Amino acid sequence: MPSYTPPLRDLQFVMHEVLKVTDEYKAMPRHAEVDVDTVNAVLEEGGKFCAEVTAPINAIGDEQGCTLDQATHEVTTPAGFKAAYAKYVEGGWPALACDPEFGGQGLPLTVNQAIMEMLNSANQAWTMYPGLTYAAYEALHAHGTPEQKKLYLPKLVSGEWTGTMCLTEPHCGTDLGMLRSKAEPQADGSYRITGNKIFISSGEHDLAPNIVHLVLARLPDAPQGSKGISLFAVPKFNVNADGSLGTRNGIWCGGLEHKMGIHGNATAQIVLEDAVGTLVGEPNKGLPAMFVMMNAARIGVGGQSIGLTEVAYQNALAYAKDRIQMRSLSGPKDKSKPADPIIVHPDVRKMLLTAKAYAEGGRALVMYSALLIDRELSHPDEKVRAEAADLVALLTPIVKAFLSDNAWTATSSCLQVFGGHGYIREWGMEQFVRDARINMIYEGTNTIQSLDLLGRKVLGNNGSTLKKFGKLIAQLVEEEGVNEKMAEFINPVAYLGDQLTKFTTEIGFKAFQNPDEAGAASVDYLRVLGHLVFGYFWARMAQVALREIEAGNTDPFYQGKLQTARFYFARLFPETAMLMRTARSGAKVLLDTDAALA
Amino acid sequence: MPSYTPPLRDLQFVMHEVLKVTDEYKAMPRHAEVDVDTVNAVLEEGGKFCAEVTAPINAIGDEQGCTLDQATHEVTTPAGFKAAYAKYVEGGWPALACDPEFGGQGLPLTVNQAIMEMLNSANQAWTMYPGLTYAAYEALHAHGTPEQKKLYLPKLVSGEWTGTMCLTEPHCGTDLGMLRSKAEPQADGSYRITGNKIFISSGEHDLAPNIVHLVLARLPDAPQGSKGISLFAVPKFNVNADGSLGTRNGIWCGGLEHKMGIHGNATAQIVLEDAVGTLVGEPNKGLPAMFVMMNAARIGVGGQSIGLTEVAYQNALAYAKDRIQMRSLSGPKDKSKPADPIIVHPDVRKMLLTAKAYAEGGRALVMYSALLIDRELSHPDEKVRAEAADLVALLTPIVKAFLSDNAWTATSSCLQVFGGHGYIREWGMEQFVRDARINMIYEGTNTIQSLDLLGRKVLGNNGSTLKKFGKLIAQLVEEEGVNEKMAEFINPVAYLGDQLTKFTTEIGFKAFQNPDEAGAASVDYLRVLGHLVFGYFWARMAQVALREIEAGNTDPFYQGKLQTARFYFARLFPETAMLMRTARSGAKVLLDTDAALA
Repeated sequence: MPSYTPPLRDLQFVMHEVLKVTDEYKAMPRHAEVDVDTVNAVLEEGGKFCAEVTAPINAIGDEQGCTLDQATHEVTTPAGFKAAYAKYVEGGWPALACDPEFGGQGLPLTVNQAIMEMLNSANQAWTMYPGLTYAAYEALHAHGTPEQKKLYLPKLVSGEWTGTMCLTEPHCGTDLGMLRSKAEPQADGSYRITGNKIFISSGEHDLAPNIVHLVLARLPDAPQGSKGISLFAVPKFNVNADGSLGTRNGIWCGGLEHKMGIHGNATAQIVLEDAVGTLVGEPNKGLPAMFVMMNAARIGVGGQSIGLTEVAYQNALAYAKDRIQMRSLSGPKDKSKPADPIIVHPDVRKMLLTAKAYAEGGRALVMYSALLIDRELSHPDEKVRAEAADLVALLTPIVKAFLSDNAWTATSSCLQVFGGHGYIREWGMEQFVRDARINMIYEGTNTIQSLDLLGRKVLGNNGSTLKKFGKLIAQLVEEEGVNEKMAEFINPVAYLGDQLTKFTTEIGFKAFQNPDEAGAASVDYLRVLGHLVFGYFWARMAQVALREIEAGNTDPFYQGKLQTARFYFARLFPETAMLMRTARSGAKVLLDTDAALA
Repeated sequence: MPSYTPPLRDLQFVMHEVLKVTDEYKAMPRHAEVDVDTVNAVLEEGGKFCAEVTAPINAIGDEQGCTLDQATHEVTTPAGFKAAYAKYVEGGWPALACDPEFGGQGLPLTVNQAIMEMLNSANQAWTMYPGLTYAAYEALHAHGTPEQKKLYLPKLVSGEWTGTMCLTEPHCGTDLGMLRSKAEPQADGSYRITGNKIFISSGEHDLAPNIVHLVLARLPDAPQGSKGISLFAVPKFNVNADGSLGTRNGIWCGGLEHKMGIHGNATAQIVLEDAVGTLVGEPNKGLPAMFVMMNAARIGVGGQSIGLTEVAYQNALAYAKDRIQMRSLSGPKDKSKPADPIIVHPDVRKMLLTAKAYAEGGRALVMYSALLIDRELSHPDEKVRAEAADLVALLTPIVKAFLSDNAWTATSSCLQVFGGHGYIREWGMEQFVRDARINMIYEGTNTIQSLDLLGRKVLGNNGSTLKKFGKLIAQLVEEEGVNEKMAEFINPVAYLGDQLTKFTTEIGFKAFQNPDEAGAASVDYLRVLGHLVFGYFWARMAQVALREIEAGNTDPFYQGKLQTARFYFARLFPETAMLMRTARSGAKVLLDTDAALA
């Protein structure tokens, strides 16, 4: 069975040494008191919970999956899931980043994100139960009526109840405009909702006595398409005015999906039959309200992806040091043994370093994105808030798609380090790969992310947000442009930045004439921009490491950082050489293919 | 459940129009009578068998897996596997390419390879039972004593019995030099073998009454390391002189592995306790004897990889035409429906064409490799035989590693076309991905393939074999260099060929000083050479298609070929731009990483 050690040192490096989050908190009145010690204490406790409570039940969850009792519509989660959730609630973890008005602890999202990464390393399937609950909390917190907030938020914040997002229907996933579920207004101001939902993560389970479903449906007079969709809160059990549970509502689990991975999470078909719900936000404005959850969920997928990358890396590293097989090509390295540990082989190191570079680069990017959200939500200066919102909107599709693609590559590389044993379930590596595969699909497929990035976030505002990110790079170049030791890290980023600026103009011009040109370039474009962002963070991490080393710090952690940064620029960053070519190859070669795809 | 249509048209295109195999057969006395009609009739019958018999039980095999009765050590295969195997034997399929002296039909390996591709599309796990049997047949045919041949070959050829390769032990997979199983010579000339084997594909099952295991073990006085390993034939049931089954031998299944995929194939732990065996080939020369099987097995993995790529492609294509979701970016394409089929989107086409280009390019490469083996085994001219052997030795690691890496990418892309449904087991796409993952590992990991290619097959003879392949490219350039319409296909190949020649010299020089430089470059090098080979075959296929079109042939098949070739050069071939950079980045950035990998 795989093991997991919370990467506290690296989380602290990113938070305190690279991003200096507590300095930023000082400018945010509601987080001004959150200091380094507080952050570290929370990380340590959270890490302990992950390593001791949820990691040990990850393989069991995969093996057992969830089961549905067709008669009662009740779902049983794998052994240990319920007890772990009770401990999670008892520890107050659901409340960590929630609003104190509803019982939350009000800590910054950066701190919450660090905890989420560790939870996902330990057990992605389990973590999706509290993960969806937090998403539902956010949507209700932003758009709920005072009554809804009073009724639901304290229970979601405490974790006593859980939440879901009910979007997808059998005939519509990406294209929510085709949604058919119907909501009939009732005399008492409530709605009766009928429809069929599929792929509802955490949709039914035995962890909590009630589930608050946030459901998209159409009002009788709603316009067609995506502008006629409203959002409703539909509890599993109707809730009495005093907060106690009332009658069973007409919303139940009609079936569970058999999936490639995340078996421990119940992916439910949800049937609504005259289910009682209340409107969240304005009529026909359900999609924007839901998108509050969606953006957080997309950052969350980034956290899932680096979580899986990190845990796969840790286990592959341990195996590579332990497994004795063949001699080093340059002569025996451990003559006392019949063969050398496989970590002596360059390609084994390449596979390990690929995972390490993707995990650590991803960690910096996700933590930075969370910090931007903290600024957006909590900074007193409106301009800072707006700028942060802009930048996080640009980075969100990169966090979701770039990191989940990388996790697929990285977990597969880590499996490969194990040779044949990587293919065997007991070693746990193949579960990481299977679990990682969903991250490229849900919360908007990675193709959708790329269209969102190129179409909406870049070309949609004539590159003005992209220029803001460009300023960060320019600032780093200015700071370190004369430092010879930084040249190996800064030059490739600066060069790619120039290339990308030109290419963005070029593709903008082509897409103006033919929108399919954007569709043909977008996936490659996202990966190029992903590497630009990664390159920037790897350069900043190298900067910190170099300064420490020059100041006489002998902690090998900093040498390790430099080595990983060098590996990243030598071995992963050059993907951009391919991507710039393929992104430029245009739409015709893809679309003029009717005979090929006959 | 996925469907499968045998790609007869494309197989025939590769065999008859590109490689013109029957012209080649004419020069081989034992195949001189095999004409186009014969080949096509066999393909058609074989395709029918795959579509009707083994494809329908592929998902069942994945769902049920194999079960071991711990008391009897007997294994039950999934429902339908035994009946399908009986039909396979009844149809005479095992004998297709076997020696007529032992009951075989003596058809060329190219024909057999086409059948194997289709069998693997239909059901890779099932196909591994006859696949391993053929490998055992080959080793015994090449190295067995007259008695062994008489006893075993007719039964393996008819398929009445099956075979295995027993190499791996718990502590040694890649590094067979560490093998511990022991063989004690007996007075009667036989051996008593004791040891533990793992990962034995088709190691135990209920398809046939007897299994002929080919087992690697050490003689008592054997030298240490890989030069002290001998090969033995160890039947499950001892065989009486008249061919009837005798006593149960001391070789049994101690456990079955739980794997990521290929569940329908029994991956057995094999325990040998005083098992009676007979020596195959010379003492201490077991590894070279086993390598007869290994090379064929590696080409076989290529066939598995294109088989999975083809079937995944077929199903993703059908889904992309059927699934209605969103509008084309350039305006509605099917106004009669609420949305367009997703095949209108450029990136969906990219995913489909990736699979198609990898399947069809791989098909050409695998069939060409099989043709080289036909030349090697059956051509009367010794020089032709030697040249073919040389070339197939060069191509084998590319077939194994390049095609299996491509299949992983391609099956995953096809899954992605299905969005969330791709992650659901019932659709069958995720099984193709899980099954494909083993191909990168077994029969020598892809890293080992790359070391074999660069170290042994390229640098090992100073690039002389590589030059032979270069001559094929030069010949194509000469033929078509003045044909403007071929320029888009030929120029990139010629350019990459020049680059690779320079790089090979460069890496040879560096590796001479430090062998780790070869290890650091080899994986990227293999993929560059893989694209060079693919580029060559795509150019040849485009050549045929262009000639047909110019001759007035209006079959859209040829336009489709050109479109796929264009896609390949625009979208997949540019990977070499990245690979040449990363391959050049050297060993230091990988090996000087002790602090990073602490």
